[in-house]
Formats: sequence, structure tokens, C-alpha cells
Amino acid sequence: MSQKAKTAITPTREEDYPEWYQQVVRAGELAENAPVRGCMVIKPWGFKLWENIQSHLNAEFKKIGADNAYFPLFIPLSYLEKEAKHVEGFAKECAVVTHHRLELDKEGKLIPASPLEEPLIVRPTSETIIGEMFAKWITSYRDLPLKINQWANVVRWEMRPRIFLRTAEFLWQEGHTVHASSDEALEQTREMLEIYNRFGHDVLALPLITGEKTESERFPGAISTYTIEAMMQDRKALQGGTSHFLGQTFSKSAGITFRADSGEEQYGWTTSWGVTTRLIGAMVMTHGDDDGLILPPRIASSHIVILPVLHKEETREEVLSYCKKLTEELTALDYHGNKIDVIIDDRDVRGGEKTWSWIKKGIPIRLEVGPRDIAEDKVMLCRRDLSHKDKSFLKREELIETLPKILDEIQDTLYQRALAHRDKHIVKIDDKESFYAFFTPKNKNKPEIHGGFALTHWCGDPAVEEQIQKDLSVTIRCIPFDGEKEEGTCPFTGKPSSQRVIFAKSY
Amino acid sequence: MSQKAKTAITPTREEDYPEWYQQVVRAGELAENAPVRGCMVIKPWGFKLWENIQSHLNAEFKKIGADNAYFPLFIPLSYLEKEAKHVEGFAKECAVVTHHRLELDKEGKLIPASPLEEPLIVRPTSETIIGEMFAKWITSYRDLPLKINQWANVVRWEMRPRIFLRTAEFLWQEGHTVHASSDEALEQTREMLEIYNRFGHDVLALPLITGEKTESERFPGAISTYTIEAMMQDRKALQGGTSHFLGQTFSKSAGITFRADSGEEQYGWTTSWGVTTRLIGAMVMTHGDDDGLILPPRIASSHIVILPVLHKEETREEVLSYCKKLTEELTALDYHGNKIDVIIDDRDVRGGEKTWSWIKKGIPIRLEVGPRDIAEDKVMLCRRDLSHKDKSFLKREELIETLPKILDEIQDTLYQRALAHRDKHIVKIDDKESFYAFFTPKNKNKPEIHGGFALTHWCGDPAVEEQIQKDLSVTIRCIPFDGEKEEGTCPFTGKPSSQRVIFAKSY
Repeated sequence: MSQKAKTAITPTREEDYPEWYQQVVRAGELAENAPVRGCMVIKPWGFKLWENIQSHLNAEFKKIGADNAYFPLFIPLSYLEKEAKHVEGFAKECAVVTHHRLELDKEGKLIPASPLEEPLIVRPTSETIIGEMFAKWITSYRDLPLKINQWANVVRWEMRPRIFLRTAEFLWQEGHTVHASSDEALEQTREMLEIYNRFGHDVLALPLITGEKTESERFPGAISTYTIEAMMQDRKALQGGTSHFLGQTFSKSAGITFRADSGEEQYGWTTSWGVTTRLIGAMVMTHGDDDGLILPPRIASSHIVILPVLHKEETREEVLSYCKKLTEELTALDYHGNKIDVIIDDRDVRGGEKTWSWIKKGIPIRLEVGPRDIAEDKVMLCRRDLSHKDKSFLKREELIETLPKILDEIQDTLYQRALAHRDKHIVKIDDKESFYAFFTPKNKNKPEIHGGFALTHWCGDPAVEEQIQKDLSVTIRCIPFDGEKEEGTCPFTGKPSSQRVIFAKSY
Repeated sequence: MSQKAKTAITPTREEDYPEWYQQVVRAGELAENAPVRGCMVIKPWGFKLWENIQSHLNAEFKKIGADNAYFPLFIPLSYLEKEAKHVEGFAKECAVVTHHRLELDKEGKLIPASPLEEPLIVRPTSETIIGEMFAKWITSYRDLPLKINQWANVVRWEMRPRIFLRTAEFLWQEGHTVHASSDEALEQTREMLEIYNRFGHDVLALPLITGEKTESERFPGAISTYTIEAMMQDRKALQGGTSHFLGQTFSKSAGITFRADSGEEQYGWTTSWGVTTRLIGAMVMTHGDDDGLILPPRIASSHIVILPVLHKEETREEVLSYCKKLTEELTALDYHGNKIDVIIDDRDVRGGEKTWSWIKKGIPIRLEVGPRDIAEDKVMLCRRDLSHKDKSFLKREELIETLPKILDEIQDTLYQRALAHRDKHIVKIDDKESFYAFFTPKNKNKPEIHGGFALTHWCGDPAVEEQIQKDLSVTIRCIPFDGEKEEGTCPFTGKPSSQRVIFAKSY
């Protein structure tokens, strides 16, 4: 029997993927479950990822002329009620504020007091309240298009919360636009999805499939919902962001009208689009390994940690000052228009423990600098995308010169690795039996292991989706945009189909 | 009778200061009252101010080693109850979530369903929940100091909301630190106040008085509360930010302990500090005039608007391309380490209306460029701190060269103007009669007009504060840090006093 290699994370992905995920998030110091049911605490190392996501997307929003603004946390119950499908979609997960004071009861127990005239919902999304404001702001076609984005916390009560992936409270951005024509709104919906897709691809190193949701998976109230879908290492799908064409649904419920060029009063055409803190979960589950987190350099909380070798008191100052100088040189470099972030870790902690803490935190590059290295003006470099045993020595000058290139290499490695994994597990399936076998676990002890994404014809009947979801917990993730049009037969009904869709289990 | 000068804002400050404020906020497109009681919608021009505040303060927080993180919106009722003074202070203004679902009743009306086992409070502040996490994160003195900041929305139910100044929901940052010693925590409390003071002074052009709150004005649970106080144009005080030394109050209620160097288990010493969106209200009320908003350049949503003169179709392209080139040159300039933000307003709106919209929005500089100016390579410049009739013509080259200096001049003018106003209305008062006269309106039709800040001796008795608040709605804003120690007599009790304090009406 071969000895099992030691890993920093227990269990490994193979042993128990869901538990591995929880442990990686914890060991990587990204976040913790809060003592409030279903909520999370995002720790500094995780929050920096969110701040980096914000900074990247803000730049994109600016390019399309969307401005940031802020709308109330609370939505009156009556607003939600204005749009029937919308309230139906969110009613089961609304946190409701019913009182605005606390008082002591006769037994000295603190209880809610002063009931509100109308209960308030903690926003699960803001179409209704933002629509109400847009209706006031827009009068003429000259006010269009109107493009507003909000970074905010939202609440959707979750019965089975999972950190970053499904939490009662999460952070997101929600963009809302109004246009004078249906075509323009549709184009905006598509453009935003493409912005998310490019961001996911270039910055988060996520291979994504773009496509449209089927009716049963649409946003409540939308005419169409576009999505970016990623495959995790357990072959399950994760929806990374959505962009909705809302038609005139919310214009009509909120009264968003404008005077057209012709003088005629018309309803606006609206869109909304968002990504959330679950993108962080997607990165963890896509790139992490059995030693923990691996952060793509373009989004990493920090790029480089320098670990000075400080065993000997007499060389301590020399080593530290070398590290500081090195940091200055590295932070002066340009990396895709941003600075490279460098940490010197001079904590008084054992070397092995210190190194492993950074491996688990997924920092792209570790540099070690000791007195002997300084004598030769060289540095030891370890890349997080390679084995932790893999070390190389570089002259300081060479390091400075090649560092942005090394970061790009790491970024590319992560992307290619995820792409290969995904492509390996997307399979064209044409008959029902193979389809069911594909999604049925081979090993009863590992119910989560299954085939991956099935590219299968579908006749368009929602009853088929319903049956498959019931039988296998599998849904249509999307009708891919770049799928070839191909005449075929729906293996579930025998009816004709013009395109394959993506079926998968999902988060 | 002299004809009254026309102003862009009605009423003027003199006519009705509170209403003038509301109108300036609206005309400046900063924010609006939301349809949800007591809440506000922050519009893009106002939100940019908040983003600039965030960016400035984040740089300061980084310098002191405070990291950003995120904690839950909801606080279990039982957490608040752990600290008696804290819950007493906030019980009257808590929004309480009691249900997590909506359902239709028998009459088809949507009602709250699924009561929570324990009600949740929408955070009015986060000492209790953050303390709970800190208790888990800290084990040894090596983990200290711990410095965490959160940018978040908080809710304090307000019976008399006023936009930016008192809203049920507002945005803020709350910093929380833990230290191994009382001295270190006190030093942190003081350092943060100084950071706020410097930021207010340098960036917001607010002359501020720093000092300590009396016991009756302290944060619920604090040992001492430090404050920055500003004087508005109606001579009322506005608290711009606070920094609290919390001693071991919250360490004890949440169990934040650490193993000291000696091996002994000890309670940590904590601080918390915050500024809110009311800083935007403070700027409006300090710098605005009867034509609307005046934004200090260091914080302005945008620095310059270029108004191209586009009357003639044949010169339209030439003028626009000149403006674009000018914009490129201006945005390439360095202004205190940031870029200068320039807007070209080529909207199809009448010239007068267009110009006035920017005056009301308080943009520091307006540039007008027409075909004749281009022929001479010059530009018409108007400064928001001067009369709107005041125009000067500059050669383009000269403009580029002097622009950062002009912005600094505007910044300084605003500060000096506010300082002169404040110093004019701070008066040393030594007898009770003069004190009461100082705060009593001379004109019954203008109950808000009074003397300003009174620098008066106080013996330290809270009963005096209570009586004065009852009689005059005047409170002690702070015991100033830089007040000279001066032996004196409390004019209200005749008892000895060692320092003058600041009495004022306040927002």
C-alpha cells in the first residue's frame, strides 16, 4: 500500500468535496459562518477579493455610462405586491420588519414594540423601489437611456445556507437601466452579460458558458434571463451572474413612462443585472486544491508574500532592509494597470507554519530571502499553481524583470486547467438511458460524483425539465448562445429540437 | 426699496434655513427622500461624494493597519441585551425583523409568515456582533492590536428624519479595534479623532472643534466619546464623527480575552469610531449659498464642467474636438495624487438653464468654449466660490498650468469663509443672563436664529446640562481638547470650574 500524501486541507476534494470547500474557506481566512443563522462574516482576506471585484466592475460600468447610486434597504410590502410574478418568486424568502422599537415586558424581557403600519421587506432585489424612483426621474426620451448601479447587501432567507454560495444576506451589485426601445434594452442585457463573461474569463480565470435560461429558471418578472455558468471541480454548475431583459413588466407596475420624440407617452423598457459574493465561492471551488485556496493573480487579495529568513539576530536587519527594498521595486511594477501588492511576513512564527498559512491563503507567489541569498543577490520563488515542493532561484534583477510575466503565466495556468477540466466533463448525450446513467452516482457512498454537463437536445417542454429535476436534481443551466444550431430529437419526448441545451446539477 | 437679487434657490438661507437646505440638496441632485419613511435615495452626484469620502478614509485606515471586512446586517436580540447601557441607548430606534416569509391570508392579502425563533435587530451599530467574532479570533497578545473597519448601512429609526442629517437608514464606516492595554486603546481613540479632524479640515474644508463628550452625550456603553464638531451657517452645531474608548465594556460582555505575555488571561481594551453620510449634509450646510451647492474641490464629485458653445452647426465639430483635447490635457494633471475629473456637457439644453444646473450642483469650475475663444486659444473660466457673474479669460496654456492652483485657492477660500463665520459666532459667556439671551431668538418669526457657540464654564454637574437642554434645547457639544485650562466659575451653580466647554444648539 502506498502512503497517502499529506495535504493541508482535510478532507481532500476526492474524499468529501462539500466539506473540503468549507475547510478551504476557513483555512484561507476568507470568511466564517456568522452566529446569525445563514449569514456570514467576510474576513479581510476575503473582503479584499470583493473590493477587487468592485474596482474591476466599476471601471466597466463607467465605460457603459452607468452611475453608482444608493436606494433604501427596505421595500414596502405594497411595492412587491404590484408585480404578481415578482412577489410570487420572492415571498418564501423575505425577511420582514414589523416593529421599530424594543421595550421591556412585565417580566423584564425585551420584546418588539411599536408595530409598523405597513410591514417592510428587507430588499431581496430592488426592481420595485428603483422603478418607483425611475418613474419620477424620467419624463422625456432625452432622459434615456438611464443606467444606474447599486452596490448593496440583500437578504433572501435560505433554508440550507452555504458560505458564499447561498447565504441569507449577501453582497452584490444590481444594475438597472431604462431604454426607449425593446431592441436597445435587449442589446444592453446582452452587453452586460458579455461584460460579466469577459471579467470572469480575464480576471477570475473562470471558463464560462453564456446562454439563456429557460422559462422555469427565469428571474421572477423577466421576459428573458441571460446567465454565465461555470463548472466546479465536482462537475456541478454554478451560476456566476445574470442579466435580465425585463420588457415593460416593471415599467408598467411602477409607471415608468417617457414622452417619445413623437410626443406620444410610452412605457420604458428595462433591464437589470447582477453578480454577488458567490463569485468568490466560484473561484474557491474552481481553482482550489488539496492544500487550499489558489487565487488568480488578477483578482488576488495580494500577489506576493516575502518570507524573510530571520534565524540569526546579527543578520536580521540586513535581511529585513533587503526585503523592504525588494518590496519597493516590486510595487513599482505595472500589472495590468494596477500595482503589485506585496506583504512582508516577519511575524515571529515557525517557518513551516508560516509558509503553510500562505499556501492555504492561496497567494500566487511566495519569495524567501535569507542571508545567503542576499550575498548572491538572489531570491527563492515558489508559485502557488505548482507543487509546494517546487522552488526556483532567481537573481533579483531577473525577478523584477519577469514578475508580471510570471503572474500572467499563473493566471493562464489556472484558466487552462479549469478549461480542460470543464471540457473533459461536457458530454453530448442523445438517449435517455445514457442521460440518466450520466447523472446517477456509481458509488452510493459518494452520491455527489456524477458525469458533469450533458449537452442534450430538448423539445422546449417545461414538463420534461420538471420530471428530470424530480428524478435527478438536474436542471437546464442554459440554452448556450454559441451552441451550433443542429436539428435533433428530444430524447425524453421524441419531439424535434433545434438545439442542444446544458443539463447539470447545480449550486 | 431695493430690488431683491434673484437667487437659484428659494427660499434663501436668511428666509428659511431648514427649507433652503432641503432645496439645495434637491437642486444639487444629491439625494431625495425615499418613498420609504425616513429613508433616502442617494443620487449619482451625491453618491460620488460618498465614494470619494470612502477612498480618502480607506487610505488613512490602511496607514494605521486597519483592514476592511464585513459583518452581518442582523443582530440577535440576545446580543444587544448583553450590554445594559447599550441596549438602553438603542432600544427606542431598533427596526425589528420578526418573520422570514410572506404568505396570502384567507382574503388574499399578503402577510408576514413564519415567525423567527428569536427576533433580529437591523444593526444600529455593530459592537456586539463584531465583539462576538473578535472573541473567537483573539487568543494571544500576539493577535493584538486587531483593527477592523466596515463600510455598511445601519438603521436607527428616526421620528423626525432629515435628509443626510438624520435618516432611518444611513451609510457609514465603523472601525473596531482591540488592544492589550488601556493606554494603547486610548491612544487609538485619540488618533482616529485626529484622522477625522485632518480629513475634515484638509478635504471637506470644515473647520472642526475636537473635544470630549460629557457623560450624558456619550455613546451607550463607552467610557469616553471624542467628537469633531462643526458650525453650520445657521450657527447650529453638527457632530461630524465620533471615536469611542470602550474600555472593557464590550470585551466583558462578548468575552474578548487574550493570553498576556505573562501567561495571564486578560480582557482586551476596545475602541470604535465612525463617520456617516451626514458628513455630506455638513458640507452642504457649511459651504452652500443662495445659488445652491458649493463643493470643495478636494471632495467634489467632479471638478470641471466644460460648456461648449454649439449654436452654429458649422463650428460644432471644431468646438467639440477642442473640448475633448482640453479634457485630455486637464485629466492628465495631478491634483493631490488624484486625477482631475472633467465633464463635457454637450446636452441639447438652453445655455442659461445648463449653466445654472451646474451652479446648483456646486461644481468648482465651469469653462465655456466657443468658436471665437478657439480662434484665440483661450477659455472662459467661472469659479463657483465667486459670484456667478465673475468671469475670467485664460489662454489654454495658462489654464493647464494654473488649474491645480486655482482648485487649491477655491478649497482655501471655502475653508477660510467657514472659519471666519465660525469664529465670529463663538462667544465667551460668563453669566447666566447673557447665556440665556444668547440662545433666545430675537425675532419670534425666526426661532432658529440665535447666537452660535457659547464658550462657558461648567462645574461638571449633569443636572445643569439637563436644565439647559430643557430651557433652551442647548447641549454641551464638547469639552474642547485645545481649550486653555482656566480657573473660573460655573455661571449656573456658582461652583468652581477648570475649563470652558462649548454649548450650542445642534443637529
